[in-house]
Amino acid sequence: MLSGLRVIEGSAFVAAPSGGMHLALLGADVIRFDPIGGSIDYTRWPLAPGGSSLYWTSLNKGKRSIQVDLRSEEGREIVQGLVAAPGDNAGMFLTNFPARGWLSYESMSAKRSDLIMVAITGNPDGSTAVDYTVNAAVGYPNATGPVDSDEPVNHVLPAWDVICGQQAALGLLAADRHRRLTGEGQLVTLALSDVAMSTVANLGHVAEAELLGEQRPRLGNDLYGAFGRDFVTSDGERFIVVAISIKQWQGTLEATGITDAVTELERELGVDFTDEGARFEHRDRLFALVEDYARRTPMAEVAASLDANGCCWGRYSDFLGMVRDDPRCSTANPMFQRVDQPGVGSVLSAGSPLRFGADAEVVVPPAPVLGADTDQVLEDLLGLSSAEIADLHDRGVVAG
Amino acid sequence: MLSGLRVIEGSAFVAAPSGGMHLALLGADVIRFDPIGGSIDYTRWPLAPGGSSLYWTSLNKGKRSIQVDLRSEEGREIVQGLVAAPGDNAGMFLTNFPARGWLSYESMSAKRSDLIMVAITGNPDGSTAVDYTVNAAVGYPNATGPVDSDEPVNHVLPAWDVICGQQAALGLLAADRHRRLTGEGQLVTLALSDVAMSTVANLGHVAEAELLGEQRPRLGNDLYGAFGRDFVTSDGERFIVVAISIKQWQGTLEATGITDAVTELERELGVDFTDEGARFEHRDRLFALVEDYARRTPMAEVAASLDANGCCWGRYSDFLGMVRDDPRCSTANPMFQRVDQPGVGSVLSAGSPLRFGADAEVVVPPAPVLGADTDQVLEDLLGLSSAEIADLHDRGVVAG
Repeated sequence: MLSGLRVIEGSAFVAAPSGGMHLALLGADVIRFDPIGGSIDYTRWPLAPGGSSLYWTSLNKGKRSIQVDLRSEEGREIVQGLVAAPGDNAGMFLTNFPARGWLSYESMSAKRSDLIMVAITGNPDGSTAVDYTVNAAVGYPNATGPVDSDEPVNHVLPAWDVICGQQAALGLLAADRHRRLTGEGQLVTLALSDVAMSTVANLGHVAEAELLGEQRPRLGNDLYGAFGRDFVTSDGERFIVVAISIKQWQGTLEATGITDAVTELERELGVDFTDEGARFEHRDRLFALVEDYARRTPMAEVAASLDANGCCWGRYSDFLGMVRDDPRCSTANPMFQRVDQPGVGSVLSAGSPLRFGADAEVVVPPAPVLGADTDQVLEDLLGLSSAEIADLHDRGVVAG
Repeated sequence: MLSGLRVIEGSAFVAAPSGGMHLALLGADVIRFDPIGGSIDYTRWPLAPGGSSLYWTSLNKGKRSIQVDLRSEEGREIVQGLVAAPGDNAGMFLTNFPARGWLSYESMSAKRSDLIMVAITGNPDGSTAVDYTVNAAVGYPNATGPVDSDEPVNHVLPAWDVICGQQAALGLLAADRHRRLTGEGQLVTLALSDVAMSTVANLGHVAEAELLGEQRPRLGNDLYGAFGRDFVTSDGERFIVVAISIKQWQGTLEATGITDAVTELERELGVDFTDEGARFEHRDRLFALVEDYARRTPMAEVAASLDANGCCWGRYSDFLGMVRDDPRCSTANPMFQRVDQPGVGSVLSAGSPLRFGADAEVVVPPAPVLGADTDQVLEDLLGLSSAEIADLHDRGVVAG
């Protein structure tokens, strides 16, 4: 879908690498450069039995990789040359490195005036922040977890990093469109804390705090503002059922056999549970009815009944269970393919969740071997000869 | 940045509305259509004191809004006409409604062959799933929360919805680029479960489960694979400190005065803590040293020391505290502006976290009043006369 688009990436960890990877998975030529021996994220856990980082290979699929001595003047000039290499679809640089000195927009755009550079920082002032420190600041850990707890619960999913990577990819395509229409390049900056705080605002928490002056309390696993929670079946399985639409609500009542009890409850409380706010306010009474049903019903029967009534529900699983049992996480789903990942072996790998009608045949690519594309990239983008490339290797300016 | 781009949006809840909003915040003309009286998400909690949904206003900033009777043939034709309206930058439809019947790609593209339609579903087969049911399936709730708990912890941030919205915006811009280069439109589909499962795979959990056959255990608030956790100070404040780079690690040792104790621990255990894997494996011993420092030091002193040593750290806050105290969540940050939101009043609102050098003056727009743009849109896009529009109002086909 993005074939022809070329992005040079100087990155580490989750946000920038995942942003570049999403572009690569859509067909862009994304060239990640790393210092010789790999960057700070090259050996991050989890590790494959042979020692390769599954973190690195999972976040860098479909890219080309070059190794360059970034401390040498010559190595830095090579990177600048790659970023400035000609082409309508080239001249794009995605980075989460500090955009200072030779990596600054001023320095980079001196070599190509229509450069598009997307620079990710921790905070808007350029200072450091990572997903976990940002998450502490935005308040979710103190709104997550058991109702009776007063300790924060950190998220395990680095959600801000992932969202930041997506925003970076979006910003790059928006700037590409702008340049195509106007010829103008630009610096696009993106701070991880801005990603998090804008999301918190977009989800209503900032307005709620400001206008209502109330801290939304810990709700445990209860869904805020509607009907939803987890329940345990007679055979000890756990499921979540959510009722947002009227159809889902009525289906849930039918499926769990509590229609009459709920009608009685409406009468008792003088409320109308077709209003989702009422379902939320009186959730404890409603949950008790579903709990009672779940406690005396085995999972298979619950599942059949929820399905038959068109309910919105799901079982709880874990990473192992998802990989073992969920057909959505298997090669039955074209997004997942078995990939022969160098250094790791055959692994179930995900492509882009976007399915393009005009690009139906999707192949999920492996991550590159570090530096595997050094020579080819130097030849393709900088027009270096084999002798020149060999000389750079000999002098330790590049590797791979 | 995206000025001129026009997207028709038929949506509800978080994923599709936030995807459209991100395009609107970058300057696209996003026109959301709703049934007369508003869609299922129009009154979702949290509510402003006057009753307006802060959920809806926070997720629909910068759009135009029209109200159409979607059950009538004539209303449906109006929506199809808007989607098919001419223009190189138009002919784009973003939706999470079931893409069947009059809303199907076949039906929509019959009116404009180069249509770009981005259709979000719950599961790849088109069946329903919501953020909370998908989250239960992918395993994070069983990896989140206190180490000694055996109950799942649901996330409060609807991360999958947010990421899905971003992917939808990315897919739309990728398809726009493709059409610009080839003239070809297309259907782009995107399943919420695919968004979640690809993310889980990209973060290494699928490869870890498959290759190591191990369930990653609950780690409480410990950062996996490196050094990081929350600590409580002598005055009862809580902070997180994360050490990933060597510089951050050495800064943390200096800041907390445990350099010598850690050197001794390295000797005792025969390990080298410049390896982040070793820091993770022996984290309990290391955490005990930092705990001891934090327990006898007030927050102000901790903060000064961590800052002076260039540490990566942050305080825990909550939504109220963030809005009250964090300058990053205030008009000191140009991303946040005070907006006069109809039906709500003055609220602190967030624009896009992307800052474009070529588009420096950003104004954060309010959400529209439901149906406020009905007449203008019918005139602009369909060329209807005032008399024709008045007639549609009289017959209840449109409202606003």
